[in-house]
Amino acid sequence: MNPKNIHPVNDLLLRREDKEILTGQKGKVFWFYGLSGSGKSTLAIQLEKKLHLAKIHSLVLDGDNLRSSLNKDLGFSDTDREENIRRVSDVAKILSENGLLVIASLITPKQKFREMAQSIIGKDSFRDIFIKASFQKCKDRDVKGLYAKANAGEIKDFTGKGSNFEEPECPWLTINTENDEPEESVKKIFDSILKEIKL
Amino acid sequence: MNPKNIHPVNDLLLRREDKEILTGQKGKVFWFYGLSGSGKSTLAIQLEKKLHLAKIHSLVLDGDNLRSSLNKDLGFSDTDREENIRRVSDVAKILSENGLLVIASLITPKQKFREMAQSIIGKDSFRDIFIKASFQKCKDRDVKGLYAKANAGEIKDFTGKGSNFEEPECPWLTINTENDEPEESVKKIFDSILKEIKL
Repeated sequence: MNPKNIHPVNDLLLRREDKEILTGQKGKVFWFYGLSGSGKSTLAIQLEKKLHLAKIHSLVLDGDNLRSSLNKDLGFSDTDREENIRRVSDVAKILSENGLLVIASLITPKQKFREMAQSIIGKDSFRDIFIKASFQKCKDRDVKGLYAKANAGEIKDFTGKGSNFEEPECPWLTINTENDEPEESVKKIFDSILKEIKL
Repeated sequence: MNPKNIHPVNDLLLRREDKEILTGQKGKVFWFYGLSGSGKSTLAIQLEKKLHLAKIHSLVLDGDNLRSSLNKDLGFSDTDREENIRRVSDVAKILSENGLLVIASLITPKQKFREMAQSIIGKDSFRDIFIKASFQKCKDRDVKGLYAKANAGEIKDFTGKGSNFEEPECPWLTINTENDEPEESVKKIFDSILKEIKL
């Protein structure tokens, strides 16, 4: 859609570089993805806290939370998941262009969804972090009781039952939560992203 | 919609107050609204620059720009305008909760849309700024050539042709751009918002 009465004013806004000088960091999006129960939200929250203690401002766009606000009109079909990821990507792009550090946390089950997110946000601003744990491990944890419900047929379109989560081939960073403690994982992510956001 | 597989993690996130200490300001949304050509985008951009020079970080959510990203699937019917405003409100809410200063700039033609924005963002975080100029003045300016196009029947659902823009009864701030110079208007807004964002 490209109606005649749209006039973007991007050119007149402050440049990204100006914004980054003020926030003291590069605008960047770290995209956490993986199965439900793999630890995405836990790690996102702990990373945000660790960054905060280091006086680095970041913000979390959590898939579950967004489903009760921005994306509350969307369900879990493939089309709706794609739209979910599209919107979060467009928001994350704006924030990174404003010199902000975004931690996005969404299952993002398919490779084409990850590619779409990268394409919207821009290759330079997008870093994908695969939060890896086996289906069995996530099912055993079942922190939210979702696997039990899916097993009982109470949840439609649940990711992971069967083979509908596509493992990535070459993620920027893989965090294996199968055996590692969260503190360890968070430190690994923290160390990796510091150099990415440095001006 | 409230599916069973949604588990918001808000409680575990850093508190808003923590974020505000780091950004050095209160999270707040200043919502510019008014006719096309009233000067919303011009003032938003100049305000952002003035804040930037004062080392205050802000970001602009401009209706026109968002229509080529987050809201590119939406048109200009009443339903789509409402959805447009709902999404921007939900994004602005998240940003204000993260201690950020948001300048939203959208026509927002109806009182019920302004009320929805306030209801989503929260009364304490929402300040509405009416950018006021008469229909005739906006039509005479016609910076984007939209009034001419609307007149020629080239644009459907154009706001202002007829009586479909509802003037607000009691805005937090009214900026009359009919005769005032932009610099003057920006200074007035800047002075008014400084005390609003002070910790």
